Order: sequence, then structure tokens, then C-alpha cells
Amino acid sequence: MRVEIWSDITCPWCYVGKARFEKGLAAFAHRDDVEVVHRSFELDPHRPKDDTAPVLEMLAKKYGRTLDEARAMEAHVASSARSEGLGYRTEGRDHGNTFDVHRLLHLAKARGRQGELLDLAYRANFAEERSVFDAETLVALGVEAGLDETEVRSVLADGSAYADDVRQDEREAAELGASGVPFFVLDRRYGVSGGQPAEVFTQALEQAWQGRALQPLGGAEADACGPDGCEVPRA
Amino acid sequence: MRVEIWSDITCPWCYVGKARFEKGLAAFAHRDDVEVVHRSFELDPHRPKDDTAPVLEMLAKKYGRTLDEARAMEAHVASSARSEGLGYRTEGRDHGNTFDVHRLLHLAKARGRQGELLDLAYRANFAEERSVFDAETLVALGVEAGLDETEVRSVLADGSAYADDVRQDEREAAELGASGVPFFVLDRRYGVSGGQPAEVFTQALEQAWQGRALQPLGGAEADACGPDGCEVPRA
Repeated sequence: MRVEIWSDITCPWCYVGKARFEKGLAAFAHRDDVEVVHRSFELDPHRPKDDTAPVLEMLAKKYGRTLDEARAMEAHVASSARSEGLGYRTEGRDHGNTFDVHRLLHLAKARGRQGELLDLAYRANFAEERSVFDAETLVALGVEAGLDETEVRSVLADGSAYADDVRQDEREAAELGASGVPFFVLDRRYGVSGGQPAEVFTQALEQAWQGRALQPLGGAEADACGPDGCEVPRA
Repeated sequence: MRVEIWSDITCPWCYVGKARFEKGLAAFAHRDDVEVVHRSFELDPHRPKDDTAPVLEMLAKKYGRTLDEARAMEAHVASSARSEGLGYRTEGRDHGNTFDVHRLLHLAKARGRQGELLDLAYRANFAEERSVFDAETLVALGVEAGLDETEVRSVLADGSAYADDVRQDEREAAELGASGVPFFVLDRRYGVSGGQPAEVFTQALEQAWQGRALQPLGGAEADACGPDGCEVPRA
């Protein structure tokens, strides 16, 4: 079975939701038969690349609140994160454009290191407050994830590298009806929206597992081979 | 959309079916949104690793035919292959255990080179009659596909490397009801068995595309972020 998770690295509920999903997955009997894939979703795709702002200021402005109210909002998310055993610092984090992080996550996917880089990037952003908007930090994270430094630098320097993969993920999110993240898609058949409780994920995995039967298309008679040999040619 | 193709590198209908599928895919309007993944299926998994035999002899024995009749069967497949623009030599090819080829295809997957290695392995086996049961040939094919030679050698030397990935593909094939190959699975929802005509694949792709709507699971209210910000914490 396959679960695709659309998310952004600066989305706190994606960070928390991923941990809840993993807890729900751990309680699922067929967990070893589940493949998990990250998909890109930018929360602020139109923001200029170098335009970063402190998260608290951004929140206060977006919701028309004071900085103290924004701090209380962050404290709420922090408390949810800590309930999942995740580090979460509420000060000093920046908001910005995450296109480069997503491009790098696609490089990591191509090199079999996506899960590693995803965890490192979340932790850097939320727990360590290492800026994911800083190219040298991204290089360091890529290397920690097991990527080749020269390749990471070359992808970062070339804005078109893996750009199509990010855009395609985002097109697919729109086609699947995802307007927010995290968004979980099970075998392209079931959708779970948001950082739901772990048991919701376990139930969704169980339901998707039950509903796996394929609908056959095409003619029954076809050229095929099996353990007993290939279809004897009709000639 | 995603298409998984279970096949074996020594399965002639997989070789032909892949070309037919690609022709069907090329006629599909949303072809650029289709990801294709190879899945492992061994036709003769219990055969000892070094026990190879000429294909014509194997066919004659399996179907109780003369060598000339076996040659006629091969000529039929060859003609189907050539209709798809594929090279196909009917003499000198061996049958054997393909576990190592599949392990290498999973290494290639992890390195983003699976499509390349798959095409090279098919061509080597069917058109060029380079033996895919010969370790040095596999090394050469891996390098031609863009893999690192040292890594290829180390995977070939360690029989457990990527073995679990091959076994998992085969377990999934059984769970999905595939008893023969090629077996095509569209978004884990529709199955197409065998090397069907190209237009069958185009139709199946169109039907799968129409049936993409997700069934939502879990509560509607959940912690999520979107372009307009995150859900305002309820605290």
C-alpha cells in the first residue's frame, strides 16, 4: 500500500501530523507493506525567494493580532508538538518561500534519501531553528541526509532543477482537491485531510487495506507469462 | 497518476507489453502526469542461481514439443516484438533465475535510474543476447544505466541487498491477484493483465483518470494549514 503526504516544511500541522500519522501507522498490522512518499505543497509559493519574516510577526499580521496573541497561538501548536514528542521552539523561526527545500527533497527522492532529508528539515526548522531559507543550512542538511554535497550545491544553484517535480506535485494536489496541508492520500483512493489523531490514520489505513481489490480492465485473453510458462502462441 | 508494472526481464510478453503500454501511454492526453514504476516478478524463482538453459530447449521441454516447434513459438513472439519496433533474436538466449537482475533494478530505483536499467536489461536479453545471468554483463548494464560500478558490484556480491524489495513486490503481486506478467496496476485501483493492444492501455488510462476522485476519511475538522494560514488554534 502507498501513502502520499502533501506538506510544507514550514507548516506546523504537517510537522505534528506526520508524527501522528507515524503513530497511527505503527499501530497498523500491515505497516511493513506501506510505502510513504512526500509530496510538495508550498504554503506561500508567490513570496519572493529572499523575503523572509519572523513567524510571530507574520502570524500577528495575517490574523490581525498582537505579537503576544501570536505567541499564544504558537504556544498552542508547540504544546501539540510536544505531546507527540517533538521539539518545538516558539521564537526566532522565519517564514518564507520553501521552493528550494522542495526541489532538494525531490533530489533526495531520486537518491533514495527523501525520508531522511524530510525529518532533518522539519527538525531544523521547528526544533533547532536552523533556517531552511539559508542555502548553506540546506547544503548541510542535504549532506546530513546522505546526499552528495556537489550535487546539492548544483541543484540549489540551478533554480530549474527538480522545479517540474515540485510543480507537478502541486498540480496533483489541486486535482485531488487538497486546499490545505497536511493531506494524506492512501493508494490514490482515500484522502485524509489535516493532522488528525493517530487512531484516525490507523482506521483509514485499515479501510484502505480492505478496499484494495483491483477492478480489472481490458480483455481477459492476453499475451502473458506465468510460473507455468508463457501463453502458448496461437499461431 | 501512477502505473506499476510487474514483470520479469526474461518474459517476452513483458518486453512486448511494455512497448505496447508505452504506445498506449503516448496516446493518452495526460501522459505527462503518469509516473511509471517497475515491480519485480520472477517467473522461475525456485531455479538455482547458476542453472541456466537455452530458451529453445526449455520451451521444448516445458511444452513437450520438438526444438523446431519451439523455434516456431519463438518466431511468433519475435514477430510481435518486431511489430512494436523491438529487436528480438530467437537463438542463443538463456532462461534462468532473475533474482539478481531484480535486486539491481531496485538499486537503480533508489538511485533514480530504474527506467534506464530496465530498458537496457530487456534489450540485452532479447535483442542483443547478452546474458543477464552473467555478473560482468550485469555490471556493464548497471554502469551503462548510470549506476556506480563499485556499488553495483557490492550489491551483486551481497545476495541480501535489495532482496526484501524484490520479495515485497512479489508479495504485493500475489495480494493483488497477479498470477502472471506483465501485470499493470493503475493507481492501485485498476488492473490490466498481459501485453494487451496499445488502445486497451489508452482506454484503461482514461478510465483510471476519470475515476480519480478520492473518498474522504476521518473528521472534517482537523489541524491544517493553507495559503490563507493555519487553522487558528482553538485554545
